[in-house]
Amino acid sequence: MIDVDILDRNIARMAAATQARGLRLRPHAKTHKVLEIAERQLAAGAVGLTVATIGEAEVFAKAGVRDIFIAYPLWVTAPQAARLRALAEANSITVGVDSAESASFMGRNLGAGAGRIAVLVELDSGHHRSGVRPEDAAAVARAAADAGLDVAGVFTFPGHSYAPGMPMAAVRQEDEALRRGADELAAAGFTVRTISGGSTPTASLDPTDSLDPAYSRDRATAGTELRPGVYVFGDAQQFELGRCEPADIALTVASTVVSHHRTAAGEPGRFIIDAGSKVLGSDRPAWASGYGRLLDHPDARITALSEHHATVEWPQGLALPDRGELLRVVPNHVCLTMNLVDEVSLVREGALAGRWAVAARGRNS
Amino acid sequence: MIDVDILDRNIARMAAATQARGLRLRPHAKTHKVLEIAERQLAAGAVGLTVATIGEAEVFAKAGVRDIFIAYPLWVTAPQAARLRALAEANSITVGVDSAESASFMGRNLGAGAGRIAVLVELDSGHHRSGVRPEDAAAVARAAADAGLDVAGVFTFPGHSYAPGMPMAAVRQEDEALRRGADELAAAGFTVRTISGGSTPTASLDPTDSLDPAYSRDRATAGTELRPGVYVFGDAQQFELGRCEPADIALTVASTVVSHHRTAAGEPGRFIIDAGSKVLGSDRPAWASGYGRLLDHPDARITALSEHHATVEWPQGLALPDRGELLRVVPNHVCLTMNLVDEVSLVREGALAGRWAVAARGRNS
Repeated sequence: MIDVDILDRNIARMAAATQARGLRLRPHAKTHKVLEIAERQLAAGAVGLTVATIGEAEVFAKAGVRDIFIAYPLWVTAPQAARLRALAEANSITVGVDSAESASFMGRNLGAGAGRIAVLVELDSGHHRSGVRPEDAAAVARAAADAGLDVAGVFTFPGHSYAPGMPMAAVRQEDEALRRGADELAAAGFTVRTISGGSTPTASLDPTDSLDPAYSRDRATAGTELRPGVYVFGDAQQFELGRCEPADIALTVASTVVSHHRTAAGEPGRFIIDAGSKVLGSDRPAWASGYGRLLDHPDARITALSEHHATVEWPQGLALPDRGELLRVVPNHVCLTMNLVDEVSLVREGALAGRWAVAARGRNS
Repeated sequence: MIDVDILDRNIARMAAATQARGLRLRPHAKTHKVLEIAERQLAAGAVGLTVATIGEAEVFAKAGVRDIFIAYPLWVTAPQAARLRALAEANSITVGVDSAESASFMGRNLGAGAGRIAVLVELDSGHHRSGVRPEDAAAVARAAADAGLDVAGVFTFPGHSYAPGMPMAAVRQEDEALRRGADELAAAGFTVRTISGGSTPTASLDPTDSLDPAYSRDRATAGTELRPGVYVFGDAQQFELGRCEPADIALTVASTVVSHHRTAAGEPGRFIIDAGSKVLGSDRPAWASGYGRLLDHPDARITALSEHHATVEWPQGLALPDRGELLRVVPNHVCLTMNLVDEVSLVREGALAGRWAVAARGRNS
């Protein structure tokens, strides 16, 4: 269930915040995969979309989105090159790249079409997943240019922001990496048009808002655009990281109490709801309180999850909810939930208000 | 990718093993959700299917499966009662029940159709999820009978078998619970037709094969049928629990090396493949070695997972696989992978041999 008023408020708030900082907003659509939500983001001023796969790009391009960044270090085989060329015929398509090898391979397979594909060199700003060190960015950019690709700048994903106390540290490391990577490209003679960062935990933080005198300096953020995704919905991770309030959470999973579990002493202790990993996803970082939260019961904890069952520990001394009661579950990681359902129900002021298809669900490649 | 020869061997082996023990086999179809696999299971002698939801039952019934057990303590509202009645018109439908309240509610909503729905009372055999203690089974059965439902017996899921060293202990607790629950129903005057247990870790274990003199006794297994699911494919959990060999694993996720990650010292250390939680699922029990395994590289470990990236730690001193190399990933929990994809590729002797639709994907309710 998506509360459309909360969704719209989240979209408007992020649009205003990025505009106030002079940054372009290119929301990550892997979070929602829904055409109607992309339309709302673009109407609110987003310059285009970010996606994770060529398949997602195809779905949104077909629906009329003209400017798409595939923020992934693709290994572009010949069939994928054909798909990228088709996408680039009528659209502005940008792709991530993080090695000379992948740039050369992509350029070779794109052939004469390489010049229509822009690339951003991916930087590792501390998440230590994909991406190169900023000092290695120019070498990748040179390989991309040699392969005929249009080098447009740099990007990074500060995924290490997903831990308590980390968002501010991560946003500073991100800013440092982007600045240094962009400087390396400029020094190598490239015109840097795009310096792209952002995650929902960091998107609302300004790295220059610092109490740390070693960091503060008289300058603006290095980046030119932000790519947050989860902000449209919020989820239990964002809440537990302090990055959203319960009132900001637009998506919940409607679930039913199906079973009361008695303790060894025969006392009612926990209960079971019919939302499991096949709708909530099973992401559970070590710092999370459980496998999601109950929106209307902040003291409850979801302590176990299987495919169709979640085990809820209830505050001691309180009567358990009756079997049959409906409870709203906030998933830990909302991107996984949207990738598990074919459609979503819309809610306005508590009443059903339509449905949206999850058009790009399952487009993993 | 599903290796059809391995799939067929797994199906035949479980069919033979249950037949040799005089047990009926009712495979859990939530694992695969594929009509063609259900057909193969039934052709090999399965008496019917187990499913988790009414939606899954509808998909398989429409395809001609006539005997279906929804092994879940459903809270049957009026719309769900209408769906169950429709299913029961031409099929044998059995539903789980674990409280007098849910039995009464289901019976009331089914109305005159209640007598066509068989119920099995769910027992908690040590997993402590849903299910009642065996000594409480007769009270639930009486409520079901009072509500007009056809009480057929008892069932349990020994989910606590999913931990190293636990399968044999779990299968004995399962057997004890089933025996005691069935005895309670018989003592209360019910004719117990079905005593249903099983999980893939326990299905190949006979609780009477015991080295424990306190357990061994001169009798057969209590159960009459088994409901394993994962055995058709195998997965990394089953392998790490010692319940299957690599040669038994029928399903893998084709993935591509997309990025090499350098250590702080600039040395190649790990690499990134393009299979993430959106195809592998993110189940990761504490005892697992990681987020799945590489079928052809037993010493590699998948140490981190995000939506479209898995981080692979490679044995020290070995050269990393090249970018672009294809690797076969074994998911930790194959039921989640099948629920993430709309179709699967079939492989025979290494060559592509067709595709199957995942017909019941996403049928969560």
